[in-house]
Amino acid sequence: MNPEEICYLSAGELSWLIQKREISPVEIVKAHLNRIESLEPILNSFITLLADQAMEAARQAEKEIQAGRYRGPLHGIPLGLKDLFYTKGIRTTSGSKIFDTFIPNVDGTVVTKLKEAGTLLLGKLNMHPFAYGPTGENQEYGHMHNPWNPELITGGSSGGSGSAAASGQSTLTMGSDTGGSVRIPAALCGLVGLKPTYGRVSRYGLTPLAWSQDHVGPMARSVEDCALAMNAIAGYDPNDPTSMDAPVPDYSRTLTGEIRGLRIGVPKEYFEIPIDSRVKEQFWKAMGRLGELGAVISEVSWPMFRDSMAIASTIQMSEATAYHSDLIKAHGPRIYPPVRLRLEAGFFISAIDYIQAQRARALFYHQSLRLFEKVDLLAGPTVPVTAFKIGLDKVKVGQANVGAISLLTQYTRPFNLNGFPAITLPCGFSDDGLPIGLQLAGRPFEEEMVLRLAHAYEASTDWHLRRPRIQ
Amino acid sequence: MNPEEICYLSAGELSWLIQKREISPVEIVKAHLNRIESLEPILNSFITLLADQAMEAARQAEKEIQAGRYRGPLHGIPLGLKDLFYTKGIRTTSGSKIFDTFIPNVDGTVVTKLKEAGTLLLGKLNMHPFAYGPTGENQEYGHMHNPWNPELITGGSSGGSGSAAASGQSTLTMGSDTGGSVRIPAALCGLVGLKPTYGRVSRYGLTPLAWSQDHVGPMARSVEDCALAMNAIAGYDPNDPTSMDAPVPDYSRTLTGEIRGLRIGVPKEYFEIPIDSRVKEQFWKAMGRLGELGAVISEVSWPMFRDSMAIASTIQMSEATAYHSDLIKAHGPRIYPPVRLRLEAGFFISAIDYIQAQRARALFYHQSLRLFEKVDLLAGPTVPVTAFKIGLDKVKVGQANVGAISLLTQYTRPFNLNGFPAITLPCGFSDDGLPIGLQLAGRPFEEEMVLRLAHAYEASTDWHLRRPRIQ
Repeated sequence: MNPEEICYLSAGELSWLIQKREISPVEIVKAHLNRIESLEPILNSFITLLADQAMEAARQAEKEIQAGRYRGPLHGIPLGLKDLFYTKGIRTTSGSKIFDTFIPNVDGTVVTKLKEAGTLLLGKLNMHPFAYGPTGENQEYGHMHNPWNPELITGGSSGGSGSAAASGQSTLTMGSDTGGSVRIPAALCGLVGLKPTYGRVSRYGLTPLAWSQDHVGPMARSVEDCALAMNAIAGYDPNDPTSMDAPVPDYSRTLTGEIRGLRIGVPKEYFEIPIDSRVKEQFWKAMGRLGELGAVISEVSWPMFRDSMAIASTIQMSEATAYHSDLIKAHGPRIYPPVRLRLEAGFFISAIDYIQAQRARALFYHQSLRLFEKVDLLAGPTVPVTAFKIGLDKVKVGQANVGAISLLTQYTRPFNLNGFPAITLPCGFSDDGLPIGLQLAGRPFEEEMVLRLAHAYEASTDWHLRRPRIQ
Repeated sequence: MNPEEICYLSAGELSWLIQKREISPVEIVKAHLNRIESLEPILNSFITLLADQAMEAARQAEKEIQAGRYRGPLHGIPLGLKDLFYTKGIRTTSGSKIFDTFIPNVDGTVVTKLKEAGTLLLGKLNMHPFAYGPTGENQEYGHMHNPWNPELITGGSSGGSGSAAASGQSTLTMGSDTGGSVRIPAALCGLVGLKPTYGRVSRYGLTPLAWSQDHVGPMARSVEDCALAMNAIAGYDPNDPTSMDAPVPDYSRTLTGEIRGLRIGVPKEYFEIPIDSRVKEQFWKAMGRLGELGAVISEVSWPMFRDSMAIASTIQMSEATAYHSDLIKAHGPRIYPPVRLRLEAGFFISAIDYIQAQRARALFYHQSLRLFEKVDLLAGPTVPVTAFKIGLDKVKVGQANVGAISLLTQYTRPFNLNGFPAITLPCGFSDDGLPIGLQLAGRPFEEEMVLRLAHAYEASTDWHLRRPRIQ
């Protein structure tokens, strides 16, 4: 098989071929390492490449499988981890040179689970420093570059996870999402990315950004692959005090359930903020398609949608600065300046502001729950624009000049604040060939329904099959 | 029966006589109203006396009981409520003239439950303004006075609840406890006072002080009466988001269970702070008695005990100021100056400090839980001193001059921070005739064990039978 073809197979497809012995983990890893070698100079997706370890792990997996000890659908599947997942014996930089030589002595819970599932770790992926920014810019390890046009941002903070999976450098990647850091790069790079419910996936062994809004989530080129990843990583972990001790369904089995009659709400407030007309157009076309598939679309009102940005930012800034306060004091001048600015601003938030934000958050949570009395899912664009040039602080949207950070996180951040599950998947391309994401959100712990609707939409379109021509 | 005798009967004794028709609720209420009339000029326990309503309620109860509709052991029992429980149609001042004419249009959940149990509300009790102080001082409605010596503080903030129950003005009173506000006045006035586990009793319809540390608890002259009150007020309430949906035992039935072999830990850190030698002496005598009863006493170490004060204060100040911030801005100069000072100081706490305190609190909670791997209960004095003169900012303890606020709350506040249940009960008197309290604390939701041990100790002593001679 052509190596590029191997690199664009899904985990589901690869596992099928592995089980039939038509392809071996060694062959898969080789194809990926070759592709990384050719693309890395353009995309800069990796901070640490683990070529030797990955080959060794592939040989191990091959042996196990040949000996009949097949672990399941992720056995032998290439994996990339955002470089804030603790990996035992492998440096974990959190995207900052300050941690250039930091080597954890434990694996994060998600890392352990993915290892046990048999995935093969190709490397640690580039990211916005400390996950504190939605563009995927990093002057220390170099900016991340969008596979659809390397002059453009990947989105962030899991930018390396976005570019690696979208460019066929890794079948599956893992990101973290505090204000949209899985969904934004997934949308701007043309991937599927899932932010599960708060409490569904352990954050133990993950550098925190703002712990009351931090989530771990998978990124891949298909809904099924995200479901397979969820099967591996979801579930209770006593090491994460916010982890929920609740049964976990088989997400890949429930993918093909009925979607006719599902009620989908589109918040009218989504269109009261600056939004690119091409994004809007593709979104409504997607709604038309979901209608044809039997879903019932209606407009809903979510009055606190606009407030959610200020509430979430106040909490995020306070928690991020609290976590990093010793670091700021010790290494302030060495922190990436745009991140340092945001971290230092956190010192000036008062306890009262933080507490009032937490009180407002409780109201927002209940308003969000009430929305779901009338609908089963919410739909909207994932990001109001397509990827823009690296280095911009402000972006022109129609007549408005909007700050890049708030622009990118408008639609994603509300679901970090309420903790509800949300997925992004491709729903079209702009006329200049850039991917556009559709965001579907569900009730707490109803990832199944979110994945099922996403899968039905994906199966009726071919947006997810388009590949970037990287040059 | 002599009216003073009626006023010093317990709820358990009164209910027995009521059921035998040897006394009527009308007779009980009359005796109490007469006693209030004679003592109120000395003790100033009430902010609002509800003589007519109480008589009317007594006549109603009498009719019901005569008609065979006996509700249970609190039917016909006099009750006083700290004036921060919302009472429908009855003004609720929270101890401040700013709310002198505030009339809620709902009853707090605890108020509803106590009404349903058949209690007769005599009035709303005096308190430290906004419950923000542990002495029971209030220049607006007048200071509360200790029945054992009216020149001395009652302790607070539920000072009126303390003096009213201790002086036979009400069989049962209800307080709230954020840093010791039930247990401190109970200890200094010679009562039993229980702070239940956080989440056990609803705070709906209660003026908050610091919601993550606020608790509601009963005060009475016997352990049994606190158990009867708990039977009426404990349980899940959807109106309080922190309320725990867990089964509630019958607290009065389990009072007489076995206590032999119960392991009691005494934190050695309790004696590393200034403490009155007479309090220490009575405490150790009480430990001796518990040993004779079959409990196993040992020393334990609770390293974060000393830190708990700073952690709890940071959280309390932040939350109190957040809740009252509009009030401070609108009515600052009208707020009782010592309370205003503390409320305004809260504006200067940073979000980082609050968050770090919450993180330290999580450590403290886990350290507290680990202590209980080796013991079943913790024991210590409730307050390091006996009641002192009204108006003091600093108190001499041995060679040390200690600030009154931190002195009074040293032993009680840790259990607001971890939320564990804690009771105080009389364990002796100083040579100048002032009551000394013993504090017993248990694991979360193990009020039964706390009550059982307290009951066994009480049954083997007669401290709780002494009455103040009020003059």
